[in-house]
Amino acid sequence: MRVLAVDPGLTRCGVAVVESGSDGKAHSLLAGVIRTDPQDELAMRLRQVYDAVHEHLMQMNVDVLVVERVFSQNNVRTAMGTAQAAAVCMLAATQLNLPVHQHTPTEVKAAVTGSGRADKAQVAFMVGRILGLRELPKPVDATDALALGICHVWRSRTAVAVGR
Amino acid sequence: MRVLAVDPGLTRCGVAVVESGSDGKAHSLLAGVIRTDPQDELAMRLRQVYDAVHEHLMQMNVDVLVVERVFSQNNVRTAMGTAQAAAVCMLAATQLNLPVHQHTPTEVKAAVTGSGRADKAQVAFMVGRILGLRELPKPVDATDALALGICHVWRSRTAVAVGR
Repeated sequence: MRVLAVDPGLTRCGVAVVESGSDGKAHSLLAGVIRTDPQDELAMRLRQVYDAVHEHLMQMNVDVLVVERVFSQNNVRTAMGTAQAAAVCMLAATQLNLPVHQHTPTEVKAAVTGSGRADKAQVAFMVGRILGLRELPKPVDATDALALGICHVWRSRTAVAVGR
Repeated sequence: MRVLAVDPGLTRCGVAVVESGSDGKAHSLLAGVIRTDPQDELAMRLRQVYDAVHEHLMQMNVDVLVVERVFSQNNVRTAMGTAQAAAVCMLAATQLNLPVHQHTPTEVKAAVTGSGRADKAQVAFMVGRILGLRELPKPVDATDALALGICHVWRSRTAVAVGR
């Protein structure tokens, strides 16, 4: 299974492609960030995120899109932009008839570190370890997308193992 | 100028087409609602809103998309869905190289009734009066979209008149 994982955002949108190999391990094929200019109009920024995700979905032969579930948290204004970036990513996938899944930040942290309350540094450390990376991609949004991809690959494997 | 006005929402998304005639008055060409099923997956619902708005933009020969600006208000969860519906509408327009504008609910109320604090009934009453409608479209989301369309047509006219 090959997963495109998106840590949604308007200014920086983390993207990663993670694959579960025949050895049962997670491998990373891509990790990066889509950036849009806060000075640009919202509609244009959404289009840029959509176009970039659409291209990744097409070129990387992806089976499923996974998006980190957005919560309002503290900054509602930022959360709205994040939710809108997530929306156009989901649209791009469903237009290609690809399934879309969401995981919460707590699920991702728990999958990767064993604790839903792990901090960013701990998540990054474990992502590097799990994927055998000598260096972590920057900025952290790319690492967060890798963590989300690992989470989905592992949860799907578990779901299959228990016959769900 | 012909405007597609959208009062965004996931469960009910109000849409209206309003035109400024050569007489300087606003005319309505369409008013309705796009509905999606809350039981369906979010990605599918966003696609349904996108498809419907895309079709309106294509078929109605629209010059501009206007979307009511989303605020978090009380229910953050609803606001997120509303923001996501707005996002895919804006994407549909920008993909057709149409300009996208947003107005706040206060701007819409002020344009139509003279008061930014008017209630829904007052807005609906004035929409019917301005457009010369015998009957208001239902549900209220369609009327709200008409109000937004009138607001944009009038504000554009004023902007031209003062040479902006």
